[in-house]
Amino acid sequence: MWKERQTKLLRLFERTTERERERERKTREMDPDAVAKAFVEHYYTTFDSNRGGLVSLYQEGSMLTFEGQKIQGSQNIVAKLTSLPFQQCKHNITTVDCQPSGPAAGMLVFVSGNLQLAGEQHALKFSQMFHLVSNQGNYYVFNDIFRLNYA
Amino acid sequence: MWKERQTKLLRLFERTTERERERERKTREMDPDAVAKAFVEHYYTTFDSNRGGLVSLYQEGSMLTFEGQKIQGSQNIVAKLTSLPFQQCKHNITTVDCQPSGPAAGMLVFVSGNLQLAGEQHALKFSQMFHLVSNQGNYYVFNDIFRLNYA
Repeated sequence: MWKERQTKLLRLFERTTERERERERKTREMDPDAVAKAFVEHYYTTFDSNRGGLVSLYQEGSMLTFEGQKIQGSQNIVAKLTSLPFQQCKHNITTVDCQPSGPAAGMLVFVSGNLQLAGEQHALKFSQMFHLVSNQGNYYVFNDIFRLNYA
Repeated sequence: MWKERQTKLLRLFERTTERERERERKTREMDPDAVAKAFVEHYYTTFDSNRGGLVSLYQEGSMLTFEGQKIQGSQNIVAKLTSLPFQQCKHNITTVDCQPSGPAAGMLVFVSGNLQLAGEQHALKFSQMFHLVSNQGNYYVFNDIFRLNYA
């Protein structure tokens, strides 16, 4: 009897959490700020732990302007990022702003933060913007512009 | 005789400069960097001399995120900009980057620079991005995100 009750309660709990998860998922889908934050977290975590893994976030038409240098295509972009003259780094994010970029479900994400390189005393301040474009429900980076903010 | 020659030469010169101007105009139309630079110059000159005049650069769907605050529509955006707690200011631009934002002739412009307020000793560093959207050949600002880069 108690066992049965417990099982029922557990099932109820599972249904509740399932429902909550669903609600959370839907909220996130509707809330561009949540999507932007999730993207930013994923992007910089990947950058700092496995830079080559960023390749899946870009496509052939994607553009990166890195400190004024223009690069196009996922392979070329990741070749640039992996050949930067530092190995270990850690991005710390200060602000994330986001806006829909037009009727085609695109999203602009504007980031400011600082970049700590291994062995360097001072972190470098940077700003970066991404234009995320939806491809069958999945976002990829169509535009990426990065600048260090020199003091 | 000399007079006639002079007139001919002058006409030739006029035709040449006309042709050169036409070439320059076409180059500018084709060169997104030139359009971006012209926009940036116009935007900040207007901001620093006649802030209310910025109203013509935005439309009803335009969005501004100013230090995290979201504002929509040209009137609201300019009301925000004109009510900032400083009167005289001067933007000095450090970098301008630009990329086409997709097939619809949009353009992303990414600016970094510093903002000198009247009476303040130190300039404030800032980053700003604009998404320019073409409306019958004329660009207007659809997205605008501004952040101060605190030291």
